[in-house]
Amino acid sequence: MRSVIMHAPGDVRVEKREIPTIIEPTDAIIRVTAACVCGSDLWPYRGAETVDHQPMGHEYVGVVEQIGDQVNNIQVGDFVVGSFVASDNTCEICQAGYQSRCVHAVMMGSIGTQAEYARIPLADGTLVATPGQPDPDLIPSLLAASDVLGTGWFAAVAAEAGPGKTVAVVGDGAVGLLGVLAAKQLGAERIIAMSRHADRQALAREFGATDIVTERGDEGVARVRELTGGLGAHSVIEAVGTQEAMMQAIRSTRPGGHVGFVGVSHGVQLPGDELFFSTVHLHGGPAPVRRFLPELIQLIWDRKIDPGKVFDLTLPLEDAAEAYAAMDERRAIKAMLTF
Amino acid sequence: MRSVIMHAPGDVRVEKREIPTIIEPTDAIIRVTAACVCGSDLWPYRGAETVDHQPMGHEYVGVVEQIGDQVNNIQVGDFVVGSFVASDNTCEICQAGYQSRCVHAVMMGSIGTQAEYARIPLADGTLVATPGQPDPDLIPSLLAASDVLGTGWFAAVAAEAGPGKTVAVVGDGAVGLLGVLAAKQLGAERIIAMSRHADRQALAREFGATDIVTERGDEGVARVRELTGGLGAHSVIEAVGTQEAMMQAIRSTRPGGHVGFVGVSHGVQLPGDELFFSTVHLHGGPAPVRRFLPELIQLIWDRKIDPGKVFDLTLPLEDAAEAYAAMDERRAIKAMLTF
Repeated sequence: MRSVIMHAPGDVRVEKREIPTIIEPTDAIIRVTAACVCGSDLWPYRGAETVDHQPMGHEYVGVVEQIGDQVNNIQVGDFVVGSFVASDNTCEICQAGYQSRCVHAVMMGSIGTQAEYARIPLADGTLVATPGQPDPDLIPSLLAASDVLGTGWFAAVAAEAGPGKTVAVVGDGAVGLLGVLAAKQLGAERIIAMSRHADRQALAREFGATDIVTERGDEGVARVRELTGGLGAHSVIEAVGTQEAMMQAIRSTRPGGHVGFVGVSHGVQLPGDELFFSTVHLHGGPAPVRRFLPELIQLIWDRKIDPGKVFDLTLPLEDAAEAYAAMDERRAIKAMLTF
Repeated sequence: MRSVIMHAPGDVRVEKREIPTIIEPTDAIIRVTAACVCGSDLWPYRGAETVDHQPMGHEYVGVVEQIGDQVNNIQVGDFVVGSFVASDNTCEICQAGYQSRCVHAVMMGSIGTQAEYARIPLADGTLVATPGQPDPDLIPSLLAASDVLGTGWFAAVAAEAGPGKTVAVVGDGAVGLLGVLAAKQLGAERIIAMSRHADRQALAREFGATDIVTERGDEGVARVRELTGGLGAHSVIEAVGTQEAMMQAIRSTRPGGHVGFVGVSHGVQLPGDELFFSTVHLHGGPAPVRRFLPELIQLIWDRKIDPGKVFDLTLPLEDAAEAYAAMDERRAIKAMLTF
């Protein structure tokens, strides 16, 4: 089968590798219908993480081709969405809603879903079948649920976005934009998107942003405070992962407010004294997308949300290198790969 | 009046200074009945914070001597307890329960309550009157409510201690011990006190600890994990403020669990990547003691809790230097000063 392989930073190729087979009786094999490039795939692409002949991709939707002997919840032929972390969904941590930290967690990035087929470990716990075969126009949104929508949603939940709240969003990538959508769905009163790109500002407004702040760093913080009576936002979503973005998020939050941070942390050191005196709540990490999948799939199925709009570039799998380049150069918000 | 003054690190004296007077119409003057030395007073005592002829103390109970023209909730003659932060208790931040970050907050440490009299700014918002004049044996517990009990209580609330939860407590000073008491009152099922001092272990058990862990750092973390089926505690209270204690707290918490940190942070740098992948909740800072005061005073008044037991040394004000030395050398958990 064809699969995206990152040979080294910046060197993305589509190559043949073996079609995966059932290894554990809890596995399923799916034919991937659509995959995509994640903002977090850019860390190794840019050399910020080591990479050596790595099959890439952790977001996926597809059709079940084969199931192991112990798979009961999923049938061959089902159209399924899964999280970027495979989880049993039965352990104490999963049951508490933290499936991304399941005691048996398998990172799908170690398997690589930018490929025609993928082995899904712990299929019963990981995969959620859609109510039927989806209309083609729903595929991008269902694919978004696999990571970026689920991650933006978790960030909004972690930031306790809700009625009466002002939510600020640091980061205008797909996750930040879907954090705006999530905050809107969760009933936030006011949503401040921090962005300096016209196309992303437009999508943020479409998803529910009421205010746009173009300033960054301390100036961005000052602007958020100005918009919130000097107090800061109740809820702040951080969707970048850098020191600047984390400090911007913490400083934009009012005392007692909540920061939901989901940008994969790179080189961040949080000063304890500032965090102490800020009295904000801090919660985040790899999103337990599985917690939210049934609800998100239903919202998409009922056409109440359209998170697939973050895909502003669609390319055949063969052009994966261009998909990476376009995202790296910010020519695309998010690129979908079709088969 | 007599007042404790720290001339320089390690140099604590009792000297005369002017009896304070009403400055703002929202002030009250109280005659301090009892004061005490805080673990946080040891930071400047040990030279970890600069200090130069500073009137010391921020914990207090006493009798109202005089009130400003705009004070309505408090009468002359009332016995009152106040937090270590004066707050208006009416601003949006106070109303959200974060009185320690009131938009008009005044740190009582800048005024100094280890003295015969103290000016209390924003008296209506800051002071809570007891139901009547307290029996003398209640004074230590009411004094504890002013900071260490309120701080331990906030830590337990921030850590979401409650029924069915296992709570671990890092730090066996007065705040950590009262964090144990708070966790017990909040209904925690199991409380693991981390301590290597027999007297503090005994008090922890008296306050409700079910397990004692004597190991520290990585070994302490391993022991907590061993006691919790390999997962870590649901709730962890951090009551020290050092890098080691913060990391011990974060690493002792299960995915999705809560860390309540109240040790005044000194030299702490939290690694963003570890915090990200931990998926714990982090919340803390200067405790909004005022939020809890009415409830805590009632529990003490009804003799349902006895937090005053943390005072294992009582000295007259004149012997303040010895009170500081005894706490610094860990000969005392907490020292009360009487007048």
